[in-house]
Amino acid sequence: MLKVGVIGCGGMGKDHIKRLTDKIQGAEVTAVSDVFEEGAKAAAAICQAKVYHNSQELILDPEVDAVVITSPGFAHAESILEAIKAGKPVFSEKPLATTADDCLRIVKAELESGKHLVQVGFMRRYDKGYNQVKEALDSGEYGAPLMLHCTHRNREVGTNYTTPMAVHDTAIHEIDVLHWLIDDEYESAQVIMPGCTKYSHSKLKDPQIMLLRTKKGICIDVEVFVNCKFGYDINCEVVCEDGVVKMPAPAYPVIRRNAALSTTIDTDCFVRFRDSYDTEIQNWVENAKKGVVTGPTAWDGYLAAVTADALVKAQETGNVELIKTDMEKPEFYQ
Amino acid sequence: MLKVGVIGCGGMGKDHIKRLTDKIQGAEVTAVSDVFEEGAKAAAAICQAKVYHNSQELILDPEVDAVVITSPGFAHAESILEAIKAGKPVFSEKPLATTADDCLRIVKAELESGKHLVQVGFMRRYDKGYNQVKEALDSGEYGAPLMLHCTHRNREVGTNYTTPMAVHDTAIHEIDVLHWLIDDEYESAQVIMPGCTKYSHSKLKDPQIMLLRTKKGICIDVEVFVNCKFGYDINCEVVCEDGVVKMPAPAYPVIRRNAALSTTIDTDCFVRFRDSYDTEIQNWVENAKKGVVTGPTAWDGYLAAVTADALVKAQETGNVELIKTDMEKPEFYQ
Amino acid sequence: MLKVGVIGCGGMGKDHIKRLTDKIQGAEVTAVSDVFEEGAKAAAAICQAKVYHNSQELILDPEVDAVVITSPGFAHAESILEAIKAGKPVFSEKPLATTADDCLRIVKAELESGKHLVQVGFMRRYDKGYNQVKEALDSGEYGAPLMLHCTHRNREVGTNYTTPMAVHDTAIHEIDVLHWLIDDEYESAQVIMPGCTKYSHSKLKDPQIMLLRTKKGICIDVEVFVNCKFGYDINCEVVCEDGVVKMPAPAYPVIRRNAALSTTIDTDCFVRFRDSYDTEIQNWVENAKKGVVTGPTAWDGYLAAVTADALVKAQETGNVELIKTDMEKPEFYQ
Amino acid sequence: MLKVGVIGCGGMGKDHIKRLTDKIQGAEVTAVSDVFEEGAKAAAAICQAKVYHNSQELILDPEVDAVVITSPGFAHAESILEAIKAGKPVFSEKPLATTADDCLRIVKAELESGKHLVQVGFMRRYDKGYNQVKEALDSGEYGAPLMLHCTHRNREVGTNYTTPMAVHDTAIHEIDVLHWLIDDEYESAQVIMPGCTKYSHSKLKDPQIMLLRTKKGICIDVEVFVNCKFGYDINCEVVCEDGVVKMPAPAYPVIRRNAALSTTIDTDCFVRFRDSYDTEIQNWVENAKKGVVTGPTAWDGYLAAVTADALVKAQETGNVELIKTDMEKPEFYQ
Repeated sequence: MLKVGVIGCGGMGKDHIKRLTDKIQGAEVTAVSDVFEEGAKAAAAICQAKVYHNSQELILDPEVDAVVITSPGFAHAESILEAIKAGKPVFSEKPLATTADDCLRIVKAELESGKHLVQVGFMRRYDKGYNQVKEALDSGEYGAPLMLHCTHRNREVGTNYTTPMAVHDTAIHEIDVLHWLIDDEYESAQVIMPGCTKYSHSKLKDPQIMLLRTKKGICIDVEVFVNCKFGYDINCEVVCEDGVVKMPAPAYPVIRRNAALSTTIDTDCFVRFRDSYDTEIQNWVENAKKGVVTGPTAWDGYLAAVTADALVKAQETGNVELIKTDMEKPEFYQ
Repeated sequence: MLKVGVIGCGGMGKDHIKRLTDKIQGAEVTAVSDVFEEGAKAAAAICQAKVYHNSQELILDPEVDAVVITSPGFAHAESILEAIKAGKPVFSEKPLATTADDCLRIVKAELESGKHLVQVGFMRRYDKGYNQVKEALDSGEYGAPLMLHCTHRNREVGTNYTTPMAVHDTAIHEIDVLHWLIDDEYESAQVIMPGCTKYSHSKLKDPQIMLLRTKKGICIDVEVFVNCKFGYDINCEVVCEDGVVKMPAPAYPVIRRNAALSTTIDTDCFVRFRDSYDTEIQNWVENAKKGVVTGPTAWDGYLAAVTADALVKAQETGNVELIKTDMEKPEFYQ
Repeated sequence: MLKVGVIGCGGMGKDHIKRLTDKIQGAEVTAVSDVFEEGAKAAAAICQAKVYHNSQELILDPEVDAVVITSPGFAHAESILEAIKAGKPVFSEKPLATTADDCLRIVKAELESGKHLVQVGFMRRYDKGYNQVKEALDSGEYGAPLMLHCTHRNREVGTNYTTPMAVHDTAIHEIDVLHWLIDDEYESAQVIMPGCTKYSHSKLKDPQIMLLRTKKGICIDVEVFVNCKFGYDINCEVVCEDGVVKMPAPAYPVIRRNAALSTTIDTDCFVRFRDSYDTEIQNWVENAKKGVVTGPTAWDGYLAAVTADALVKAQETGNVELIKTDMEKPEFYQ
Repeated sequence: MLKVGVIGCGGMGKDHIKRLTDKIQGAEVTAVSDVFEEGAKAAAAICQAKVYHNSQELILDPEVDAVVITSPGFAHAESILEAIKAGKPVFSEKPLATTADDCLRIVKAELESGKHLVQVGFMRRYDKGYNQVKEALDSGEYGAPLMLHCTHRNREVGTNYTTPMAVHDTAIHEIDVLHWLIDDEYESAQVIMPGCTKYSHSKLKDPQIMLLRTKKGICIDVEVFVNCKFGYDINCEVVCEDGVVKMPAPAYPVIRRNAALSTTIDTDCFVRFRDSYDTEIQNWVENAKKGVVTGPTAWDGYLAAVTADALVKAQETGNVELIKTDMEKPEFYQ
């Protein structure tokens, strides 16, 4: 039984606590912490756990084998570095940290520790559809991938959602999952801005088309459209030398009514990727016990940050921007 | 240029007159007839044709090479027999005649004439979808057909539509097209009556499931549901020894809206089979010039009548009813 | 933690032992039994459980809270009756028992015990697709169901598979899941025998079309085709007064290759319903702790046996056979 | 009966001659011309037409009411200018002329003539799918278009097909049809070059992604992949403010076989757009009689040339290139 401490008891924190308590095999939540006492207590009540108000104390509690971090992004780096110091496996919700520099500090700390400890919460890698596509690509049957056509469409966003958030909060998922899917790294980024939908506001250019080129020359286009109104619609088509592989939409009944044949499109990302979250955490629990990381690593978190920075710059300049890490990918992460 | 005389100037008559005038190559309408003077005149105005009030006179007019019959069903037999006597090609809208006996008289008259003159207006044989399925079956790639699952769904019918009309006006299309599709003849019929939809009335059992067995042992089920509300929905799936072939629905754009992915289902049989009517008549015109019939023959019209009679009997008895013709299929119609 | 004893250590038994050990939360296998010592030992090794050679002893072991029965069908009744006597929850793989009479004895024993103890392993009730359809039907949006069109297609069967097995081993799944889906009971059965596929043998009529009518007048057709060659293909379309609801096929990538657009059809029922087995057992474990049964009951097992008997009779007679239980559905099972 | 003269008796010329003779209503081919005597004679034999070896003489023949030009591209301008001079309607296969300058000369000549005489053979405007999408867009139900995602995939090309031909011979169809579809004009072009497929050769970068921006700010991406191997695959998805509209693929039977559900993808552009060619010519014939042009005009031909030039430049520079015409769109072409 893996004893898990959860840092950050907001919505996502409570979600993971419920998941670990009700659905996941081989784990139990033994401690929670939050700077807000009320939140921490409410979360602790779900799982009968100890309550901390200081994340460091939670990390050092001997009744905590491994740590889940669901605090606000700016607080991630400190907790993760503590956990590495304590030699405890740590699952950090995305982002790994809010700056590429902080991500790099985490990478270096993990490298120095010599132990595989950090996993980032890019749950799409556990989605059945992406895995079916990956399996097809890895089979070699379709030859080398050449292009990816993707969409990340969201029903609507609030007025606090601004242009750069289309990268940091939305495309960030594609940034991680796509390079994993095709086993490649990014080289450059460009962003194209079509005319704006009437449903957006002055601080948000919506939609956007983000273009990424990988080191092998694969060209990716991601339509990011966060006020598309009709649903949460994630698509991914991989054009290969010997065929095209498209991720399926989730299966829903086929309805005949009102002169139309129709199926449901999801409207909520937590519904769309519900199973992915469960699989992700179950997988992390099993790996934490073995001391391995098979999900997105600290390096992947760093790559995502560097790529996001280039995309945000490309949003501003309209140019093709290079994507460059400050160090080569270490052997440790191969 | 085939000079065509059209007998019967109601809706269907005018439709065919417009078709022959505007769309069909190699034909012109030179004469029309109707017992109602007004109707005949209105129809004649479309195509600058001579007006008759007597179908026999029209048939004998030397400026009429071939005849299209769109008069009410009870009047078909007489006109067709006249046309055969005159040795002129004749296209009769369905039904060939209102009784199996009258159909048989027509068959015998055509046989005696020794010329292939009569075609019945079962337009589905010219539908692209059915032809694609037939091509697949005829390719031999899928082995022998074993079962057909079909639906004939219609939005709604009036209160004058009664239980036997589900056979005579609706399933009659499947009766003709299905035995052509699988190149087989019917042996027996059964009708199953599910509970009635709330949208029907006391004179109409709706829906019905009609079961046909062919001489080769192929089993066909046709769901006939004429108040299905949602559209005009024709399906045909052929289960073979080496695979299943399903007729495609007509192609319409795929729409994402309101949390649904949808395509249009037709609501009108004349839209669904519009192209079939054009192809049917173009084909008949070309064949009439050559003196051949490649579409549904008088024999097919007779078969349809015999099969329909068995189905209506099966509606009443609930039993399996044999489908028997009064003569073997003559060599002439092979 | 529910302590589970597993009776019968063949393939299905080992499957459930692995499931309970690796995937299910809140349960552990504490004892196994099999008449074959080797099998029992091998199974026990998976889960570090006690080994019995006598199912009664296992049932009475105080370290066994609940029992899973995966022994051959003929041995089910005895074990289930023992479990009822011991007041322990029991999950029996299908069939509940091999005769309707034995099923009825179990029903009566459970009734007398006054406790809800028995669940039958009809796992399709836990399939996502069927549940999506049920949710749609239960929403009332589509009005009353009138007809169900279903297929149960299987790649191929061995020469030991005979005509009645198309009911007992194959259609049995539809028998249970369909009446649950539409919340109705069966009234009569008929079986239609199309010409046989070349891939069958003299003891097996394949395919068959099984027709069931419910007390509310809903008409069901199930195509059972166990040598269809192309895959394991389960379909279920419900035609309602206000629309048609069709169960989706499992989602697989959409491939463009070789002049075709294609998706995978499953070939193995354990792949098709893998998630259903997991959900079924997880659900049973949780209910066993609470002392309730929300899955298929002993009554459902009895109904399935009575319905199967009528279908086998109908296979032989070609007639419509009544489906009659020896008692009314007791209040206890409502 | 429109008397048509056909200039150029190669494959496309013979195709149109057969079409005009066998399928089109209200036209007949009265004269053909080709610099190769053999070709002209063979073509004339199809339709019993007069033979010319000089296109000017054909145009001036009083037995020629209208002209179809299917000669090599470089010869178009001269014939079209002759036809304009003679005041005869002229249908020119694409391209209108091989340079933007020549196209502009034709535009100016037509303007001076004051008569609508020239139509260019962009047949996709007559495709049912594109028209269904246009109808949806024009209905206003989906709000303003924001982005178009398109593919133009072709099985394979010969070694004589070079990088610029991806524009001139392939994307040229999208260039015309897309601005018509969204009723807008192009502003700039960019071309992205992914890594090359192993099936290409040194003179051809394949695939390419062509990006077009319109004056209203609509962003278009067209994947041009001419050695995709699997088929001729034309896709067009229009993302609007209130929904997404995707052109349907042509309807083919749905097949279950070999553990897959599949439908055919076309492999030949003449099969994919067969009906479009027929509709295009029928429509042109009817318009020629009335003295109007409702299809692609000389101005559209000029726009296509200017856009193609910008795309070819963008292929070379890798930059965003402006698309500028030498004159404003004249009132005459509104």
